[in-house]
Amino acid sequence: MREIVFNGNEKKIYATDEEGIVLIHYTDIITCFNKVKRARIVNKGIYTNKISSLLFSYLGENGIRTHFIRQVSDREQLCYQIGIVPIEIDVHNIAAGTMARLLGLEEGTKLKNTVIDMRYNNQKLGKPLINDTRATALGLVSSSDVDYMLNVSKRINELLVKKFDACGITLVDMKLEFGRASDGSLILSDEISPDRCRLWDKSTGEKLDKDRFRHDDGSITQAYKKVYDALVNG
Amino acid sequence: MREIVFNGNEKKIYATDEEGIVLIHYTDIITCFNKVKRARIVNKGIYTNKISSLLFSYLGENGIRTHFIRQVSDREQLCYQIGIVPIEIDVHNIAAGTMARLLGLEEGTKLKNTVIDMRYNNQKLGKPLINDTRATALGLVSSSDVDYMLNVSKRINELLVKKFDACGITLVDMKLEFGRASDGSLILSDEISPDRCRLWDKSTGEKLDKDRFRHDDGSITQAYKKVYDALVNG
Repeated sequence: MREIVFNGNEKKIYATDEEGIVLIHYTDIITCFNKVKRARIVNKGIYTNKISSLLFSYLGENGIRTHFIRQVSDREQLCYQIGIVPIEIDVHNIAAGTMARLLGLEEGTKLKNTVIDMRYNNQKLGKPLINDTRATALGLVSSSDVDYMLNVSKRINELLVKKFDACGITLVDMKLEFGRASDGSLILSDEISPDRCRLWDKSTGEKLDKDRFRHDDGSITQAYKKVYDALVNG
Repeated sequence: MREIVFNGNEKKIYATDEEGIVLIHYTDIITCFNKVKRARIVNKGIYTNKISSLLFSYLGENGIRTHFIRQVSDREQLCYQIGIVPIEIDVHNIAAGTMARLLGLEEGTKLKNTVIDMRYNNQKLGKPLINDTRATALGLVSSSDVDYMLNVSKRINELLVKKFDACGITLVDMKLEFGRASDGSLILSDEISPDRCRLWDKSTGEKLDKDRFRHDDGSITQAYKKVYDALVNG
């Protein structure tokens, strides 16, 4: 029986025989609205694992340091264990969701520049927006950590916009998380998948992401499979 | 009859015979909670005008460019006319109010560093928090305008913390606004008074600001007079 390190809804993390390396198992659970809405979507975890593995490999090949080592099965990947950094970076290329509503922008508005928001990843507080001065005042990270996360997030976004675009998909926005590696540096962690991004079919505008679950549009696994197939063949 | 340029609750702005110069009249109206709570507080406008005049003079003497020219009567001051910049800068030295509540901090917590928030000054949207990328994506200001406002706000805060401290008052937080001068540069505008700051008596902790109105603690004019007297004599 493997020791469980983290027992989440969407992911379970297990210790391995090797110090500092964990096995991440992707489940079929999907949640939204601060975990208030929750469901099991058959085989979803297979696609979030496969898509995230593929995108983390791509980012690694392009010089981004990540926690990802390799995919080991349909639902599992080996990763470096990281220390939690309670910050979420939201990258927006096109206005959508909460951000659009709160800023009075129509969904689908192409933004003049990429918007990069930082949130305190605290569920109880509803993940409030923060900035560099809030992050340091709360003792979450240093000012240079903030600079690093914002700069790397911008670079990650450039790489992924290009990658998705070549596959006929628009990267509307995404949530990124970083973790503290054993040497103390920050590395990209968590996952990059339709559970964390808004992805629209470039030609039809069809939503291929978690918004299908938020708005009960159905066919979630099929949409995620479509993203995976596009990435593999695109 | 003077031409009215802006007819606000707390301030009325009139044209003068001189191009580019306006007369700002401070009323006794006080509002809070996004203007939902509103009252007339006898002689309040005299103190907000006098305190703001005194503090803008002090900042001007210390190298901060402002819209303020001079106080001309108990309720009036002459200022340079400015173009509206729809951004509010909130500077926090100690956790209080909405900021404390949303970040899960106890009121009165001394912050590890000064927190500087930026808001889109749009009443209809409830003044949402923004950052540099949001400000430029919304087309509100340029990225260098943001840098300038944040840097100058930090300097203004240092000057005012020192000034108030010497008068036995703690500057807890304040809202600042900037405007576009006729040469296109940004200058400090609006007012700096207990209507825009949280000010606590250093020895007793007594609140000497608009929180008295928010929480129905009464004696608003007396508290504002106390601030003014401390600044004059301190």
